[in-house]
Amino acid sequence: MDMQKPAGSKINQPCAACRTLRRRCGRNCPLAPYFPMEEVGNFTCVHKVFGASNVIRLLQRVEETKREDAAKSIVYDASARLRDPVYGSAGAIFHFQKHIQELEVQLELSRAQVMELQEQRDQLLRILMDVHHLLPFPPPPH
Amino acid sequence: MDMQKPAGSKINQPCAACRTLRRRCGRNCPLAPYFPMEEVGNFTCVHKVFGASNVIRLLQRVEETKREDAAKSIVYDASARLRDPVYGSAGAIFHFQKHIQELEVQLELSRAQVMELQEQRDQLLRILMDVHHLLPFPPPPH
Repeated sequence: MDMQKPAGSKINQPCAACRTLRRRCGRNCPLAPYFPMEEVGNFTCVHKVFGASNVIRLLQRVEETKREDAAKSIVYDASARLRDPVYGSAGAIFHFQKHIQELEVQLELSRAQVMELQEQRDQLLRILMDVHHLLPFPPPPH
Repeated sequence: MDMQKPAGSKINQPCAACRTLRRRCGRNCPLAPYFPMEEVGNFTCVHKVFGASNVIRLLQRVEETKREDAAKSIVYDASARLRDPVYGSAGAIFHFQKHIQELEVQLELSRAQVMELQEQRDQLLRILMDVHHLLPFPPPPH
């Protein structure tokens, strides 16, 4: 991280990463665009889980226009790992997969019930039509 | 990582981590129980994303009986990040959340259809009961 200020940053305000690591924050700081001082908690999270140098490497694997999204998802993964050190993001995935399976079962049951009810309704309509012809006079309106 | 062999490991066989890092694998190697040589790809993944020292720290934050699950979920997160460097595990979570929303909408529609059909069936049954009393003779069996 060099001695020049990153473009657009507040004068003398280092990014959250450089502040945390007690380094000078320069114009070419690779973390400054994604970890401003106002969101220092985000950097603390990713630093605890991935380490700053891994975060830089993970961001640099991604084309520049996608790095903001990548930084956000790295923060998301790190927060999940700190919240749930055993399962992390994977825990949420297993939970969602289970919920999807439950919803799919419920949906299948509900659709089977719709088909059964449609059949019952059609059968009742057929009976009613047949009966209608047998009436000596029209039935009272409903 | 010390010079003694980890309990239960094959003679002269280092764990995947020590083999990758070209270190001696000792009895107290903190990664050997979770990264056997047979699954070297798992260690390569986590090493690329988190770095070995962060993996050791993440595992040590977890009580010993949960470390196998933690190691598996760390491998899962790392594989997701390598497969999708922009969104990683978070990408799968967003995808699942969207799918859950869609399923919930479909389930709501299907349940509304069930209620409507039940109402139609009950109404037809009431009409049929009324009509039945007006018949000069019983209707033919269906």
